[in-house]
Amino acid sequence: MNAWFTEDQGPGLRISCQVTRVLHWCKTKYQEVAVYETPSFGRLLALDDVIQTTERDEFVYHEMLVHVPMFVHGMARRVLIIGGGDGGCVREVLKHPWVELVKLVEIDEEVTKAARQFLPGIAGSLADPRVQIEFRDGIQYVKETSEKFDVVLVDSTDPTGPAVGLFGADFYRAVSNVLNDGGVLTAQTESPFYNLELIANVQRTLREIFPEVALYLATVPTYPGGLWSFSIATKGPALPGEPLIPISFRCKYYNAAVHQGAFALPEFVRESVWGSWS
Amino acid sequence: MNAWFTEDQGPGLRISCQVTRVLHWCKTKYQEVAVYETPSFGRLLALDDVIQTTERDEFVYHEMLVHVPMFVHGMARRVLIIGGGDGGCVREVLKHPWVELVKLVEIDEEVTKAARQFLPGIAGSLADPRVQIEFRDGIQYVKETSEKFDVVLVDSTDPTGPAVGLFGADFYRAVSNVLNDGGVLTAQTESPFYNLELIANVQRTLREIFPEVALYLATVPTYPGGLWSFSIATKGPALPGEPLIPISFRCKYYNAAVHQGAFALPEFVRESVWGSWS
Repeated sequence: MNAWFTEDQGPGLRISCQVTRVLHWCKTKYQEVAVYETPSFGRLLALDDVIQTTERDEFVYHEMLVHVPMFVHGMARRVLIIGGGDGGCVREVLKHPWVELVKLVEIDEEVTKAARQFLPGIAGSLADPRVQIEFRDGIQYVKETSEKFDVVLVDSTDPTGPAVGLFGADFYRAVSNVLNDGGVLTAQTESPFYNLELIANVQRTLREIFPEVALYLATVPTYPGGLWSFSIATKGPALPGEPLIPISFRCKYYNAAVHQGAFALPEFVRESVWGSWS
Repeated sequence: MNAWFTEDQGPGLRISCQVTRVLHWCKTKYQEVAVYETPSFGRLLALDDVIQTTERDEFVYHEMLVHVPMFVHGMARRVLIIGGGDGGCVREVLKHPWVELVKLVEIDEEVTKAARQFLPGIAGSLADPRVQIEFRDGIQYVKETSEKFDVVLVDSTDPTGPAVGLFGADFYRAVSNVLNDGGVLTAQTESPFYNLELIANVQRTLREIFPEVALYLATVPTYPGGLWSFSIATKGPALPGEPLIPISFRCKYYNAAVHQGAFALPEFVRESVWGSWS
């Protein structure tokens, strides 16, 4: 058996995982959806041949995208997730005991179908009665809805195709409008090694809309360069913040020290995002 | 042009960099030494087909291996580097103005020759008059020398072949003997995602020899899993410590916040290294 899934992670750079089985493949209206069985990372979900999540390392991304803003907020009851159709963020949000509603707005129903069938450890919480799922464009949703939320999480693909708008000012303004007072937004914002200009642009844009903005980092082995960035913005709570209440559930990556440490930006990131004046 | 250097980073996992030129290749008494020109990472040094350093991301590894222990010590004048024949650690050590001597003990002279010729940005500082180089086994050196040092840095290859002994108790005891009072040891100790047992063993061993021991992390894109670990042990200075004097030189990764943040261990690392009782 010598089959390999290969992702072009940048010009002249590839990551390859051995594949023992192709569990699923389909072409949807938006993208190609594939689930592979791999010896190195367990089951692997790829969209348009880009690794989205694997059973072995998904905990880093999902815990850090979710628990940092949830503990910054402190008492979120209503949470909106844009993208994230695999259900990993939903699973983490539901660990916070006072959450009453998780609204998942995913553009591609086929992603969720594939995750429910082949990634039950990630998608299992989608069946929770507190979860509402809408399969539609998240950009349109936040512009049109009259619902309000305490925390909004943007769990998007890379900024190409339908996800481009999820990195722009119009979208962030619409998110600000659906956030309650004291609300918190977190968005995945790509790799500091490969997308530093994008990150700096997002941070600049967020600072025009929100009073508190910061960047934090975590290392996801299967993402390009390993180091990954998350942009966080609030309508009140100070950043970086910290867990003000005890962490009442088990994590594999997140803890109070990691919460603080994730906001320590390497010099090349800090300079690019904040300039040399800060 | 479609030539690729491929490293098997673990079972069923490969990283591949396009190669536009093979600048150097030789088989030494210890290993195969290769330098490739790559569009994605600049020049790349591989030993036995394992990436050691690249022009694009070497700054992370070298800054974090060097500046954390140097600032924990605060006033190191005499520094010993075991391995590190490419010169990257020497370059960073020499940024500390009161350093009088950097002793580099590298087992394979051919590594240093290749780095001097093909990686001048990394090896250039080897010509500094404060640098003494000995090409011999670092394990033997620390056992036999009567010289003393303030900081010892272990910049080794993976724990196979001649480097195995650099991860063992006998070696660490010998290092303790060559350290002055207040001395600090740092060693690269592999990937938390792939070598957690090794890391836990090293930490346990160090705690039997040194009064202060800790682990810190940084993300090096071309290393397996991205996340990389460094074990630090001192004969006095508290850990994590911090830069008590202003950082008088420019870094691309290291700064005072990164120094602190690097000691925040993800939960799966903390549990493995410190157990659930801490």
